[in-house]
Amino acid sequence: MNIGILGLGTVGGGVVNVLAKNQTEIKRRTNTQIQVTHAAVRDINQSRICSTAGIQLTQDPSEIVNNNSIDIVLELMGGTGLAKELVETAIKNGKHVITANKALIATHGNELLALAKANNTHLLFEAAVAGGIPILKSLEQGLSANQIEMVAGIINGTGNFILTEMRDKGRDFDSVLKEAQELGYAEADPTFDVEGIDAAHKLAILAAIAFGCELQFNKVSTEGISEISGEDVAFATELGYSIKHLGIAKKVKGEIQMRVHPTLIPKTRLLANVDGVMNAVLVKGNAVGPTLYYGAGAGDEATASAVIADLIDVIKGTVSNDVLGWKSFEAIPYQNHNDIESIFYLRLLATDKPGVLADITAIFANHNISVEAVVQKQIDEQDNAHIAIITNQVKTGDIQVAVTEIQSHDFIQEEIKIIHVETLD
Amino acid sequence: MNIGILGLGTVGGGVVNVLAKNQTEIKRRTNTQIQVTHAAVRDINQSRICSTAGIQLTQDPSEIVNNNSIDIVLELMGGTGLAKELVETAIKNGKHVITANKALIATHGNELLALAKANNTHLLFEAAVAGGIPILKSLEQGLSANQIEMVAGIINGTGNFILTEMRDKGRDFDSVLKEAQELGYAEADPTFDVEGIDAAHKLAILAAIAFGCELQFNKVSTEGISEISGEDVAFATELGYSIKHLGIAKKVKGEIQMRVHPTLIPKTRLLANVDGVMNAVLVKGNAVGPTLYYGAGAGDEATASAVIADLIDVIKGTVSNDVLGWKSFEAIPYQNHNDIESIFYLRLLATDKPGVLADITAIFANHNISVEAVVQKQIDEQDNAHIAIITNQVKTGDIQVAVTEIQSHDFIQEEIKIIHVETLD
Repeated sequence: MNIGILGLGTVGGGVVNVLAKNQTEIKRRTNTQIQVTHAAVRDINQSRICSTAGIQLTQDPSEIVNNNSIDIVLELMGGTGLAKELVETAIKNGKHVITANKALIATHGNELLALAKANNTHLLFEAAVAGGIPILKSLEQGLSANQIEMVAGIINGTGNFILTEMRDKGRDFDSVLKEAQELGYAEADPTFDVEGIDAAHKLAILAAIAFGCELQFNKVSTEGISEISGEDVAFATELGYSIKHLGIAKKVKGEIQMRVHPTLIPKTRLLANVDGVMNAVLVKGNAVGPTLYYGAGAGDEATASAVIADLIDVIKGTVSNDVLGWKSFEAIPYQNHNDIESIFYLRLLATDKPGVLADITAIFANHNISVEAVVQKQIDEQDNAHIAIITNQVKTGDIQVAVTEIQSHDFIQEEIKIIHVETLD
Repeated sequence: MNIGILGLGTVGGGVVNVLAKNQTEIKRRTNTQIQVTHAAVRDINQSRICSTAGIQLTQDPSEIVNNNSIDIVLELMGGTGLAKELVETAIKNGKHVITANKALIATHGNELLALAKANNTHLLFEAAVAGGIPILKSLEQGLSANQIEMVAGIINGTGNFILTEMRDKGRDFDSVLKEAQELGYAEADPTFDVEGIDAAHKLAILAAIAFGCELQFNKVSTEGISEISGEDVAFATELGYSIKHLGIAKKVKGEIQMRVHPTLIPKTRLLANVDGVMNAVLVKGNAVGPTLYYGAGAGDEATASAVIADLIDVIKGTVSNDVLGWKSFEAIPYQNHNDIESIFYLRLLATDKPGVLADITAIFANHNISVEAVVQKQIDEQDNAHIAIITNQVKTGDIQVAVTEIQSHDFIQEEIKIIHVETLD
């Protein structure tokens, strides 16, 4: 089996290293000699984390996807422009393609999967979601007897590192972000990670596999963590919650919802204890109940572990054909955003005068919203009360109307903060 | 595809129910009409948790395994006598067999797998370990790029329920066991669960799949939880640990160790937060690092989820052939028990007189054992000191010699309690 790799950076280098160090194990599992024969790189002379002995390097990636001696192409270069063209060519040339590229699959997966199906090749992407955690295989095979009701995951390590530091050390968002950038956890432009776009890519993929529907990245409602303040973290702790940046996909009464947002979850849940750069995905099946999958969401060898697992599946023929084999993508309607039901955390800064809390709760009552918990902090020097409220489960549209009404009162001193709460029970 | 089931109790009934309620999903995944055509039961007239419409019932299980119209046999009756004979006959008749029977696989798996291989049939047993958690598939497929270094799991829900109640409510072992029996979590004879035999069955299976070696149930060193006292639980909490009944398999310098025993693990670890009847398995791979798999370890539909996942794999041909395909079971030497390295917790009841702690630590020092932490409780009414000690990592043989020496001193008032500590980092 001859393998061609597009990109010998962190993930590509990790794949070469893991194939070398575990060759005995992998040979035993596949009964096949796996050989990386070619690799396309940006600069042949650059130093790398892996040995390139026995690998023919080229700066022209089209040589890889058009090379007849190559059976399987690993797309580990990233991006959605050139990478897409190369994957298409490889598939048209009858090659199986394995990729770690979440943006490519989330945004062009439907057409690429259709192309792979038409060309009778496999297009696999376990490494695109949650790094080394075998979450897609678990959804496709391990939980294949179930109707999946919910997937909720910490699927961006950078964001989880930032929120963990904010909670454990009382630090603010900006200072932790800066440290994350120095540690190499966050990019110079952190938008993809902290604004939830990376997580939305992964969630769209998770939902498609979980529910057996087409990829609908543009339907994911996405909210980042950059607006989470130290005060929110402190209130959450006091109320018995931890704030996590979750990607949540649910199927409710035949409709799908997909959303990425900061979420208060009860401290005692396993997900609340997934800290630092680690990832974890909670899956609820209608037979198995809740299950959870935890591990490293990034890193050279952890991601390589997922890429090579796909490679071994292709070689052994143990690919679960759900994606490739779908007769048609099931058209599952998308739930209207205003109809999505959730519990909410609200944080208000209000003038401390008699009757304010009564006014607020009266507005909630008018919209049939119950208050489950209220915490009020010491009045500050400006005579303002800092108030946190947890509601019951309500429709998103209803909470927005109520909050708009409360916001219009002159006793409210700043924009009301709204954060989702999930009990995950 | 015609399915015959041996046993329509909790698991068998769950399989019939899940196949019915998720038939659309399963049809879409398999593109096959799955039909349970026959089932063998002890008493045809007994009431059951599932409908038997369309299923031909018999009290003679040999009718199932010898019926030419049946393609796949689900062995869900339990036991290692009749069940073994029936599985053998089914395999010899060319049928694939799926079982949830951990005792059968742990004690007769080597010969049954060889028989299946000789007859070119599949023998699958995902449901035998950790119920609905797809842990065997994850080891075989999701982590196939790795050399597995360690598996550590909470794989007996009854034991975990008891330890959780003891910790959270300060109750003693006997009263919680009684409640577990009333709730149906524990059998009338709880030996299998609380003495670790059930966990040892599962650990032998986990180790065989993880390391690619033969099943060696008789090599598992097994210790139950019935000797864990409220005092141990309190000391563990004070020292920052939680006591869990773990099954641990490690490969250290080319040798295997397998052990089931109560274990102190740091409170902050995810495994320490797996509570009640839930199961979880921590797996360390040399590429992916630590990963964890959590879910229900028992229950009708959770177990059925694993049985049906195997069924779907057989039907789709996506069975990972590692077990069936091994050219030969790898002979990995078993580590001498005295050479196993571990951190230890010791609890001593000693006369409160000057120099006792100095004497104890001197004996440790003579055996090159360091003391990492000591906690001493209030002197009791008999003027005895209750002392808990955490050692550094030492050989099991060395700690035993040191403890024997300490025990021989007349200031020691009762047998010294020894419990393993695992940092799991």
